[in-house]
Amino acid sequence: MTAPHAWPELRGIAYGGDYNPEQWPRETWREDVELMREAGVNLVSVGIFSWALIETAEGEFDFTWLDELLELLHANGIAVDLGTPTASPPAWFFAAHPDARVIDRDGRVMGFGSRGMASHSSPAYREAIFRYADTLAARYAQHPAVVLWHVHNEYGVPVGEDHSAHSAAAFRVWLEKKYGTLDGLNSAWGTAFWGQHYTDWQHINTPTVAPSVVNPTQRLDFARFTDHQLRECFIVERDAIRAHADQPITTNFMANQSWTTDLWAWGREVDIVSDDHYLWAADEDAHIGLSIAADLSRSVGGGKPWILMEHSTSAVNWQPRNIAKRPGEMARNSLTHLGRGADGILFFQWRAGRSGAEKFHSAMLPHAGVNSRVFREVTALGADLQRLEEVQGSTVEAEVAILWDFESFWAQDLEWRPTEDLSHQERIRAFYERLWLDGITCDFALPGQDLSRYRLVIAPAQYLLTAADAENLTRYVEGGGTLLVSYFSAVVDENDAVHPGGFLAPLRDVLGVDVEEHLPLRAGQTASVQTKSGDSLGADHWQEALRVQTAEVFATYQQGPATGEPAITRNARGEGTGWYVSTRLDAAGLDALMSAVYADAGVAPADLPEDLEVITRHADDAVFRIVVNHADEDAALPAIGRELLTGTDVEDTFTIPAGGVAVIRSPRSRTT
Amino acid sequence: MTAPHAWPELRGIAYGGDYNPEQWPRETWREDVELMREAGVNLVSVGIFSWALIETAEGEFDFTWLDELLELLHANGIAVDLGTPTASPPAWFFAAHPDARVIDRDGRVMGFGSRGMASHSSPAYREAIFRYADTLAARYAQHPAVVLWHVHNEYGVPVGEDHSAHSAAAFRVWLEKKYGTLDGLNSAWGTAFWGQHYTDWQHINTPTVAPSVVNPTQRLDFARFTDHQLRECFIVERDAIRAHADQPITTNFMANQSWTTDLWAWGREVDIVSDDHYLWAADEDAHIGLSIAADLSRSVGGGKPWILMEHSTSAVNWQPRNIAKRPGEMARNSLTHLGRGADGILFFQWRAGRSGAEKFHSAMLPHAGVNSRVFREVTALGADLQRLEEVQGSTVEAEVAILWDFESFWAQDLEWRPTEDLSHQERIRAFYERLWLDGITCDFALPGQDLSRYRLVIAPAQYLLTAADAENLTRYVEGGGTLLVSYFSAVVDENDAVHPGGFLAPLRDVLGVDVEEHLPLRAGQTASVQTKSGDSLGADHWQEALRVQTAEVFATYQQGPATGEPAITRNARGEGTGWYVSTRLDAAGLDALMSAVYADAGVAPADLPEDLEVITRHADDAVFRIVVNHADEDAALPAIGRELLTGTDVEDTFTIPAGGVAVIRSPRSRTT
Amino acid sequence: MTAPHAWPELRGIAYGGDYNPEQWPRETWREDVELMREAGVNLVSVGIFSWALIETAEGEFDFTWLDELLELLHANGIAVDLGTPTASPPAWFFAAHPDARVIDRDGRVMGFGSRGMASHSSPAYREAIFRYADTLAARYAQHPAVVLWHVHNEYGVPVGEDHSAHSAAAFRVWLEKKYGTLDGLNSAWGTAFWGQHYTDWQHINTPTVAPSVVNPTQRLDFARFTDHQLRECFIVERDAIRAHADQPITTNFMANQSWTTDLWAWGREVDIVSDDHYLWAADEDAHIGLSIAADLSRSVGGGKPWILMEHSTSAVNWQPRNIAKRPGEMARNSLTHLGRGADGILFFQWRAGRSGAEKFHSAMLPHAGVNSRVFREVTALGADLQRLEEVQGSTVEAEVAILWDFESFWAQDLEWRPTEDLSHQERIRAFYERLWLDGITCDFALPGQDLSRYRLVIAPAQYLLTAADAENLTRYVEGGGTLLVSYFSAVVDENDAVHPGGFLAPLRDVLGVDVEEHLPLRAGQTASVQTKSGDSLGADHWQEALRVQTAEVFATYQQGPATGEPAITRNARGEGTGWYVSTRLDAAGLDALMSAVYADAGVAPADLPEDLEVITRHADDAVFRIVVNHADEDAALPAIGRELLTGTDVEDTFTIPAGGVAVIRSPRSRTT
Repeated sequence: MTAPHAWPELRGIAYGGDYNPEQWPRETWREDVELMREAGVNLVSVGIFSWALIETAEGEFDFTWLDELLELLHANGIAVDLGTPTASPPAWFFAAHPDARVIDRDGRVMGFGSRGMASHSSPAYREAIFRYADTLAARYAQHPAVVLWHVHNEYGVPVGEDHSAHSAAAFRVWLEKKYGTLDGLNSAWGTAFWGQHYTDWQHINTPTVAPSVVNPTQRLDFARFTDHQLRECFIVERDAIRAHADQPITTNFMANQSWTTDLWAWGREVDIVSDDHYLWAADEDAHIGLSIAADLSRSVGGGKPWILMEHSTSAVNWQPRNIAKRPGEMARNSLTHLGRGADGILFFQWRAGRSGAEKFHSAMLPHAGVNSRVFREVTALGADLQRLEEVQGSTVEAEVAILWDFESFWAQDLEWRPTEDLSHQERIRAFYERLWLDGITCDFALPGQDLSRYRLVIAPAQYLLTAADAENLTRYVEGGGTLLVSYFSAVVDENDAVHPGGFLAPLRDVLGVDVEEHLPLRAGQTASVQTKSGDSLGADHWQEALRVQTAEVFATYQQGPATGEPAITRNARGEGTGWYVSTRLDAAGLDALMSAVYADAGVAPADLPEDLEVITRHADDAVFRIVVNHADEDAALPAIGRELLTGTDVEDTFTIPAGGVAVIRSPRSRTT
Repeated sequence: MTAPHAWPELRGIAYGGDYNPEQWPRETWREDVELMREAGVNLVSVGIFSWALIETAEGEFDFTWLDELLELLHANGIAVDLGTPTASPPAWFFAAHPDARVIDRDGRVMGFGSRGMASHSSPAYREAIFRYADTLAARYAQHPAVVLWHVHNEYGVPVGEDHSAHSAAAFRVWLEKKYGTLDGLNSAWGTAFWGQHYTDWQHINTPTVAPSVVNPTQRLDFARFTDHQLRECFIVERDAIRAHADQPITTNFMANQSWTTDLWAWGREVDIVSDDHYLWAADEDAHIGLSIAADLSRSVGGGKPWILMEHSTSAVNWQPRNIAKRPGEMARNSLTHLGRGADGILFFQWRAGRSGAEKFHSAMLPHAGVNSRVFREVTALGADLQRLEEVQGSTVEAEVAILWDFESFWAQDLEWRPTEDLSHQERIRAFYERLWLDGITCDFALPGQDLSRYRLVIAPAQYLLTAADAENLTRYVEGGGTLLVSYFSAVVDENDAVHPGGFLAPLRDVLGVDVEEHLPLRAGQTASVQTKSGDSLGADHWQEALRVQTAEVFATYQQGPATGEPAITRNARGEGTGWYVSTRLDAAGLDALMSAVYADAGVAPADLPEDLEVITRHADDAVFRIVVNHADEDAALPAIGRELLTGTDVEDTFTIPAGGVAVIRSPRSRTT
Repeated sequence: MTAPHAWPELRGIAYGGDYNPEQWPRETWREDVELMREAGVNLVSVGIFSWALIETAEGEFDFTWLDELLELLHANGIAVDLGTPTASPPAWFFAAHPDARVIDRDGRVMGFGSRGMASHSSPAYREAIFRYADTLAARYAQHPAVVLWHVHNEYGVPVGEDHSAHSAAAFRVWLEKKYGTLDGLNSAWGTAFWGQHYTDWQHINTPTVAPSVVNPTQRLDFARFTDHQLRECFIVERDAIRAHADQPITTNFMANQSWTTDLWAWGREVDIVSDDHYLWAADEDAHIGLSIAADLSRSVGGGKPWILMEHSTSAVNWQPRNIAKRPGEMARNSLTHLGRGADGILFFQWRAGRSGAEKFHSAMLPHAGVNSRVFREVTALGADLQRLEEVQGSTVEAEVAILWDFESFWAQDLEWRPTEDLSHQERIRAFYERLWLDGITCDFALPGQDLSRYRLVIAPAQYLLTAADAENLTRYVEGGGTLLVSYFSAVVDENDAVHPGGFLAPLRDVLGVDVEEHLPLRAGQTASVQTKSGDSLGADHWQEALRVQTAEVFATYQQGPATGEPAITRNARGEGTGWYVSTRLDAAGLDALMSAVYADAGVAPADLPEDLEVITRHADDAVFRIVVNHADEDAALPAIGRELLTGTDVEDTFTIPAGGVAVIRSPRSRTT
């Protein structure tokens, strides 16, 4: 995409939400626009679920109400993020094309009546989405209200995988293109095992329900195929819009909440990354998961500002217990996103809908109306964001990267792994949380990318690691980097085949160690390790029998099957260092370990309270420190500059109240 | 139905059970009848599962064995409740009409071989049940043994919902009749949300499995439709029988154990309410659930005597752990039913069947034979019931009503509610149990009915409340009633749409409060409330942010997200009072609350041991107090009159032994 | 089968594993064979999953690589167990015969891509397996490498039951053959219950999903049918091979790990019993389950030596947590199998496969290569087994038998039993474990077989017991045997119909007691019993109301519904004694009980540490005591003779190191 589409034509931080006025009468529209102005809204997403109300029959479009809506919004200075409603085709579409329905692996045909995801491989669906996007863009490309295009909604959820005949046919085409020959496929899939050898492309099906576990490489390829098909659908629509329109085009991701799309690949296709994020209510530290989502959104977009397309003002409706946000929590969440690179803070949705599956989802304007805590906080946040106009466009810089590789996640999550206690999400969260508490901002990265900008690279769960990526990591260390690899990494190659030489073989040289055998622990079993300096670090779930070559032993197992054997190793290699951790350390154990690793890497933890989140955004001539106080007590931050929300000059320290937020601008040369 | 069909031609309390002699040879029949006489049996239900043995091929009937059986029973003075076996069509029916099989929401076709429920919307099934009922009634309408007709068996279980093509077609017809226009349906269902707008009736299907949550109003209407279809099937049979026969017609409900049929509507269609009840063995106080079932059976029948059509002499067979009844428990259960209005005490079944799915279900005559505790207790109970002949026809009067509304239950039980901890069953049981322990007999009622006869009306879980019903409750209070509303009530209207103005809006005036936001708690979190008088009441699961208008605050949150805010309110309105409770009080908390509520309502708890159950039935010139001692200790009841089971005159107090029962008759004017 | 096929042409104990070289290049084959020789391998199983690589299209066979492989193995002195790969038909087979796919009870069609089990009743499948077996045997019957034939793989797993149209048609044929008339079927199935009467064979289907619980006798017959169909498939292949070949023919069972095949019937069809066994990792005493499997394998083979066809060198891959074996554990497992009659110790598999569903399954040659604990132990075990050549052919003799009856298990495991706490596996393990700890070797037996050789027969869970088998047990006691029957036995006959006279009626005379009523306990409830001598024995889950006739009461309930009533009884009958235990005793309780029972039976527990496993194999002129020390401490065994693994003469005692093994040969006359 080229520069003209770089950012919506908006002033300052975008603020608003999904707006679904088709559920309401015209008098409500007028009230809505008035209240939006009161709340400081400058951008709304429109038309996300409006297919049936626009294309009322195949090829028959009625834009009357949308024309009217866009005029009303434009007249009131509210810009529009115009959506294509292709996540939910109309009833008439499925009636005309019953073969376009998604079929799950058990053979169940997904009916109409919820969000009506169609088969991503159905020719009729592809034709229909092109027609809609083309028609919509032709009509509104020049509309002054439209500043952004919003294709589809949350690709990959609620369903991604499809086992319909259209999907199976497309899967065969995709496989033939990938492998060229059946020999290639048979070799990659290891079909000699369990007698799965193929002699005809037509014999290959999607990995439906079967008597036992389905070929893991087939399943891994099916995950890749699913991601590819969804992205092809996006590209159909994007290109249809681009043929008419110059505004930037996005689709909303679900970073750290859905794993079915390879966001690195998607990040290359969109003009602007946008993301939906919802707190996981059962997690009392859900703001850390939120931070992961924000850092990942920034990372897959190459570090550029992005848009928080959806979050919630208070509770959602689809979790087991939907906890309402506490006073100030919505502002804290918003500022965390902003601090980590978001230049737009939007919600699902503007006005709570009376009907349907999401009536208990909070909104900017709740069922309780304007006389409510939520609407008062929404208005206050809108005013705050207007005070941060100058932050727009500034960027985040990180010295540490955590590897995040969707292909590896897809592979690891297949069946019949050594223990069900293995979880890449859990380990990534554990290492990330340690960095978060230490006040160290990090990026996410791919194992094959240029990592030289980072002092420290952490691989919490890189189960699948290609030989080429292993070489890249080796070069990174040899060039002076510090690499920390956690257990059950570098186990398989791109075909989910164990590396020749065994587990960890591709990293044997850089880490100075390899893995003779996995030693998962029984349920509930704990087994600490002891460091060289005599400290005992808590651990559980997993041990490995290591074969140490050139590494030094940093810690040794005190309990469990590997008692007395090496648990954590450190290897000097070239200009850098490679660490290997073969067990699941608990939080205190990680704290002790990372102190040593930071020292190797030359990374300095912040000297601040653990619950005081400080992230820095860099502009050409200033830095902005976004400060979020998650504690129940006030916190003092040493700072010189100006606090933008209160308009206060700061000469020494700034006190952020319990639960409060601040944004402190300092000159570029005086960041502390 | 008219007076001639008011009650079976029987003397005194009906006693007996299901009798399935088709499983046994003729010599067993003769032994059965002899033992029935020994046990005091005067009524048996016959033919409930006999379709295949009567209609041996389509339209070919062979009544030989049934003729013989009815003669044998009649000759021995045992009356017959004659069943239509339409709950379980024959194998030949499904072979001829495979399209009449039920299909579940996942598309699974329900096979033959268990209880063979057919599609309630299949024309072939409807034709077959008419033919059977018509033929049976024509043959036996004048038979002197037949005193009652028993249509079908437990409508709605084991399956109610049907997603077959016949059901889908009928659903469309039902919807078109209900809504008239698609505009009406689209509006009621809120189809603008998630792009579900319909343009053709033919595009509408039953709510089958879909990619995400299906439209809740569609599901609510489908529940209504299912209930309607089942009732239509009943009416087909009832009218076919009535064309020939004068005896009363019933079908056996499953009050408080199945929620798929709207028993209020069914109560209007049957001549006599009959009910099946089985203890939930895991519940050590299962007799309280039993009491709910009995009170509900009486209530849906408009207060008239009803028949306990099935219960068990000891264990059932379909629960995780089927606990046998202890000595005396069967008699206690029976007397509780009788006390709450049952004039018939029947069992499933007379003789334990050797084969099939229910062989481990207890019976009046167990596998162990006559030399058994169970048969001895059966015989003793038969003798006891004969001593209660004069109780037959007396009625129960209640000052308190609990709202019980199937439509509200159907709506609340849909997906994506604020927390999975919400349970209407739990709250109804909690309030009912408080009344039970306080010795206060209650009716169940609908929110839209005339409530003026009650001093106190409790709404433990009235999630769906129409504006009209809210007005009825308001008028009830204004006229002097006391209304207690528990949380998550008056949330939605008849279309599962949130009330304009927000949660509780329709009751805002009568309660003097409304709900700004739901505040569900995390799993395991408790959060007590403090009353004005300083008492701390235990609570958990749920809080609400209240906006108090005219109400006074009775209790305030001490913990949790609403700390310091109102939790329980009391509002004087007209001549009456409206209470609102916004959290889940524990048993002790309810006790404290209800003391205050009783005082407002002028309701007096009984001054008796909590485990001593006393229910009063009223005849023209006498009252009967049915007394059940659930305690392990004897209990003394102040009474004057005559204890009917022992034939003892009571002049001051009567001592009911631990685990025992008594029935004390007093003159109408001396009820204490 | 005749003597010529009695045992593979091998010297000493067979040692090796599954060998799947089709996954590897030729240079790996040569390395494999060299390492096999190093490890002492003398037998490998070949071709188990090679269908698609041999029969490359219907009727087109290419044996090139298999020819080459057999030559290579033979040239290196490694014998071959040649497999038919019919457990996993090729993709082309299913493409040509989509109707041969298995369908589960929910109607889901089992797709290709895992282990591709076909419908056992598909004519196309039966034709294909005959063609393959016939062609393979014709080619290799005379090959000098081939010493054993290995038909199929683990019949019954991963799927056994099939609801396809082919299966339904075959089920009807099987039923018609079994019952002759529909009257016979209707009577046996008790179809009068729930209206299931059949009037046409064509109306009968497999027991697919239905609205409620399916007829239990139909399900029991379907289990019998499934076992029968699988065995018919085996016989097709066996007979096709036998037409060409003289070597013994086997198929690998899964004793004590799969219950879908009646191994007693299978034992009669194979020349040699072979078994696959995998530890259940969550069980810290998994070696006791292993012992059950070994004793069962020996028993179903009539006491003859058998082959452990598969076990694992370390972890498997399909359990929730796959625990690696500890040093020495593989040897201990192997010696336990050998001690209990195995004359072959084989593994799945020789070399760990890089790809596919089982890449994390351990192997003789692990991913880590020869420089690994596992390969070193494999090599050591091979050497040890060579030292035990003379043990081959010796047999095990037992004084105690535990009843093990697959038909009874199938019946008991159906739905709607009195409590979900009932488990035949649990009770068998409990009684077996008691014997194991007491050092008493036992056989497994059928209730209808000649039991006169045993001093003691235990029936831990004989729910289904025919009248004829009850008579056999009665005769056994009358002839001097001691019989111990545990609760929920002799409940139903061969049709899952309760015995006339009630529970336990067929054993009433021999036990002097019967069961009036089942009294399952609530979850978590414990209820001890008190013996005559005043000891209190722990118990839970279950009680029964007993009616004692001639028995004496050994213990009485102290708690629970049967408090004060008999719990355990002992009855003198003829020359013997019948014990009945009506509750679930805990381990200590069983210990106390069994002491008394042993005394009755004249069985003497070993006076050895509980963790020291000693099993005796008997040859014509010597006995071999196989000793496995499961403890963490050395153990001393009184012995005179020669320890074969170390070549040590033993004159008084032999010390087995912690975790170690020993095999002590003594002359036949001096077994202690």
